[in-house]
Amino acid sequence: MLIAVPEYLASKAARTEAALEQCFAEWVDTPATLLEAMRYSLFAGGKRLRPGLALGACEIVCGDDAPALPAACALEMIHTYSLMHDDLPSMDNDDLRRGKPTAHRVFGEAMAILGGDALLTMAFDVAASSGDARVVREIAQAAGVAGMVGGQVIDLESEGKRLSVDELKGLHARKTGALIRVSVRTGALLGGANDEAMGALTAYGDHIGLAFQIADDVLDVIGTEAALGKPIGSDIARDKSTYPAAVGLDRARTLGEESVAAAIGALEVFGPEADAFRALARYIMDRDR
Amino acid sequence: MLIAVPEYLASKAARTEAALEQCFAEWVDTPATLLEAMRYSLFAGGKRLRPGLALGACEIVCGDDAPALPAACALEMIHTYSLMHDDLPSMDNDDLRRGKPTAHRVFGEAMAILGGDALLTMAFDVAASSGDARVVREIAQAAGVAGMVGGQVIDLESEGKRLSVDELKGLHARKTGALIRVSVRTGALLGGANDEAMGALTAYGDHIGLAFQIADDVLDVIGTEAALGKPIGSDIARDKSTYPAAVGLDRARTLGEESVAAAIGALEVFGPEADAFRALARYIMDRDR
Repeated sequence: MLIAVPEYLASKAARTEAALEQCFAEWVDTPATLLEAMRYSLFAGGKRLRPGLALGACEIVCGDDAPALPAACALEMIHTYSLMHDDLPSMDNDDLRRGKPTAHRVFGEAMAILGGDALLTMAFDVAASSGDARVVREIAQAAGVAGMVGGQVIDLESEGKRLSVDELKGLHARKTGALIRVSVRTGALLGGANDEAMGALTAYGDHIGLAFQIADDVLDVIGTEAALGKPIGSDIARDKSTYPAAVGLDRARTLGEESVAAAIGALEVFGPEADAFRALARYIMDRDR
Repeated sequence: MLIAVPEYLASKAARTEAALEQCFAEWVDTPATLLEAMRYSLFAGGKRLRPGLALGACEIVCGDDAPALPAACALEMIHTYSLMHDDLPSMDNDDLRRGKPTAHRVFGEAMAILGGDALLTMAFDVAASSGDARVVREIAQAAGVAGMVGGQVIDLESEGKRLSVDELKGLHARKTGALIRVSVRTGALLGGANDEAMGALTAYGDHIGLAFQIADDVLDVIGTEAALGKPIGSDIARDKSTYPAAVGLDRARTLGEESVAAAIGALEVFGPEADAFRALARYIMDRDR
């Protein structure tokens, strides 16, 4: 079956956004400025990759993606909070995100911090609305000290340093990989995956997380701003370590292709129900063509 | 039975701190600077009121406080993150907290933001380790848009305004009251409270939350720095609305005493097992004597 990945992701994004709107409808008795700051960043045109992975993994294991909606919403809220805080003047000091002024440029620093805090907090209310405390723990651990926040600290402490390819992998496994991996895992968990399916999908999540970061770094060198969503060469300008800088552009591309192949290999326990995930893995490295 | 409240709180604090140390022991594979910033603020000599309320409520309903330890730790981590973020230059811009330099003065703004983010995130891992998704939802809602974060936004937007006593109550019910109320509720929940006990303890939490804020405002006018833990008159200097400013010192004290009486009244469904909570309610307003 030929799968059109952008359409697949768009349909999962639409389901996620409808569910996110339902969350906002429940958040009454709340300062309007706070909700506005949260909405501004949450509905800023993201690809909704993490919700797509959660919904897709759930659908693979049980034929329905609805059970994963609480995880999908929570993961997108956490991804958004991390962007709001990373963009702050004391962190990456970014003025633009997806072509729009960053939250702190529009609402001020205090509201960008509090809007992020609120998204992070409410994400756990939404995740726990699944009724499954294991989903909450998995997400918190992936977003926490040994995951995303820890990765951001390592990233800040690494600026200006030249990292080895193993150090780069360790950094990205925490900063972006952990949340991608847990997106697949919590979707599978809420779909009732058995151990074999969970193992296969976890490996898939690990491999596409790496492929995604390599593709991002490659695009930063050779891509278009439209494909990347941020100015070309911004990693180089900021003297951030990248895979092309660590191993060269050709070797970086090969590493990315190997990760895609490993991701697809991990899905061999599934039949055609996993075709969308196979296509998604290929799509990650093909964005730069 | 005569209950010595400082000793009661100290014994609950010791149990909480031992459990918090166990959490840190589990957080391996994590940047040392991040853990240091989290520890610095978390072990800064707080009274551990929220853990004391969670453990105490659990003990009242089931005779044992151990089931409430996950909630106790999570609540103290969330309280600490809120102080770290509130102290930031773009918020209250405080240089001192409990007589020590604030986290951003010691570790820099980025690490104070990330340390707070990490405490908030890991709090939900710890809360969910209870296995009860309801506890996660209650805590997230109390800390979130209609609770603590919403209250901080209202507080920032109210600076320089003179609030009515009803507006003040609404502000504090969100900013500090919601977390105090949920401390009692989640402790009771984890102790297996029936509806009657839950209703009584919820009312107790609401009343002592209000009494606690009024006492804090009164102390800011007449107390000693040692009793308050921050410079006397700092609310007045910052032109924050307070109960003494809204209704006068005598009327504020009367409102506080009425809240204490209502809190004790709410406990009438319990016998001597709730004596510590009765003493705690009295102690709140007596700190200024």
